[in-house]
Amino acid sequence: MVTNSRRISNLGYISRHMPKHETTLRVRYAETDQMGVAYYANYLVWMELGRVEYCRAAGLRYRDLEENDQVLLAVVEASCRYISPARYDDEVIVTTWAEHSTRRTVTFGYEMRIAGSDRKIATGETRHVFCGPDMKPRKLPEKYGELFRAGINGR
Amino acid sequence: MVTNSRRISNLGYISRHMPKHETTLRVRYAETDQMGVAYYANYLVWMELGRVEYCRAAGLRYRDLEENDQVLLAVVEASCRYISPARYDDEVIVTTWAEHSTRRTVTFGYEMRIAGSDRKIATGETRHVFCGPDMKPRKLPEKYGELFRAGINGR
Amino acid sequence: MVTNSRRISNLGYISRHMPKHETTLRVRYAETDQMGVAYYANYLVWMELGRVEYCRAAGLRYRDLEENDQVLLAVVEASCRYISPARYDDEVIVTTWAEHSTRRTVTFGYEMRIAGSDRKIATGETRHVFCGPDMKPRKLPEKYGELFRAGINGR
Amino acid sequence: MVTNSRRISNLGYISRHMPKHETTLRVRYAETDQMGVAYYANYLVWMELGRVEYCRAAGLRYRDLEENDQVLLAVVEASCRYISPARYDDEVIVTTWAEHSTRRTVTFGYEMRIAGSDRKIATGETRHVFCGPDMKPRKLPEKYGELFRAGINGR
Repeated sequence: MVTNSRRISNLGYISRHMPKHETTLRVRYAETDQMGVAYYANYLVWMELGRVEYCRAAGLRYRDLEENDQVLLAVVEASCRYISPARYDDEVIVTTWAEHSTRRTVTFGYEMRIAGSDRKIATGETRHVFCGPDMKPRKLPEKYGELFRAGINGR
Repeated sequence: MVTNSRRISNLGYISRHMPKHETTLRVRYAETDQMGVAYYANYLVWMELGRVEYCRAAGLRYRDLEENDQVLLAVVEASCRYISPARYDDEVIVTTWAEHSTRRTVTFGYEMRIAGSDRKIATGETRHVFCGPDMKPRKLPEKYGELFRAGINGR
Repeated sequence: MVTNSRRISNLGYISRHMPKHETTLRVRYAETDQMGVAYYANYLVWMELGRVEYCRAAGLRYRDLEENDQVLLAVVEASCRYISPARYDDEVIVTTWAEHSTRRTVTFGYEMRIAGSDRKIATGETRHVFCGPDMKPRKLPEKYGELFRAGINGR
Repeated sequence: MVTNSRRISNLGYISRHMPKHETTLRVRYAETDQMGVAYYANYLVWMELGRVEYCRAAGLRYRDLEENDQVLLAVVEASCRYISPARYDDEVIVTTWAEHSTRRTVTFGYEMRIAGSDRKIATGETRHVFCGPDMKPRKLPEKYGELFRAGINGR
């Protein structure tokens, strides 16, 4: 129903439809530091992997967004709470979800834990605005809203 | 006055004494991404540079803390607000200050701007606990409290 | 035959037995630079992933080598020829093989190409010595020689 | 003398004129790994810093080359010999020189040592071609040849 979907869109359509997505990575030697644990800035790289795979699962290849539509997802805020260290060769599961989304902004939430255990290592959040290549704010093209919704309904 | 300085110490001695510290870095090519700006996780690396140089200015070589006293400064929380992009070869001034400190924890605040302009690019905060090499919480050795104070008074 | 296997071991047992190993990774946004391609130092990180997965396939979890036997695989030489750029979100297949190996040194060779195409993007080589945690040369424990051989024969 | 300078240019004008250049950096915590030393890929980042500062000393701001002339310095080959580990907070002096240069290619040589000691930690080499933003080979604009020479003669 058009009226309804428009209303949902206004309220933030991703957050209401898209389930959480899990992606797995393995801690690289390059990512450790001399404390013997993963260096703290790398968690933001892992969040990037989480949201890219979240988008892919929703039918949006982030690369296409940049290449075909000249729309970038610029970060305006990021935060991470470090709960327990990740170590070299650990398999880390990044759970990603959209906490809120409009055609101008998206906020992603993240939870990271070690595969095969209940050990939670971190939680995080990133807030983004859609921009053009000039780094000025832009709306997400309407078709991507459709893509998101299609991806979600189709699963 | 002994009584007073002890009281201050209990309340958080760094934050009350140590002035803000500025350190400068240049954005590396390696730190850019295909958006043509510095990748967002690198700001946390820059905060690390800021707090290391802050400590050095206060008379504490962070390396000695780890090597001689087996005390690590583990991050428990980090956040960054991205205000305006930093670009390749930009000189970034990181202003660092201790917002609060006890013998168990320190919270640093950061502000980053482009040298030679008033353009603020980011603000951030990191919260740390002192740990042993086993990553279990430890108190900062008493002597480092003295070192901080000496460093500050001596300037 | 004991005599023969000992002779092979002296000549470099890995290179004679172990087939090439392929591992796949996806170019991260963090790994791109403002040229719009993967930054050149990251290829050495990818070689690290290649050799770790090579070892895992041969039955050696590199992490165990460090943790249980205090043996590190220190790099003494690395080189890379960049043939064609890798771009964001490309799937890169890293083919890794041991060119030569003794109980003191290993030389790995690498070839990287884009998945789903014949496009070769780079070739490389790294030479390593086994070290103790003091960074002084050490022999690879005998049992790991066995593990390698077992891993290879058992496949 | 025109004839002579043209001949030198053909043979590689940078390598004949420009003295070695030294730049200093401090090993970041982010650059260490769990071996307690600087991770091997970072040496290529340090070489980048070396050649950028080499160019700046010669009167060429590399950023301008990209922004104003759409000329990129793409790497086609890199190698590094690791002699002795660099540790956290070490000051590393990168000595950079042009081994050979034409209007299409440059080869840089590097030597890295720890400040305040004679300890050499690494030597390296990178070979580059000048490219357009399309990553296709291009000649270095003639004026930059002049700039290099002017920078050298003027010192």
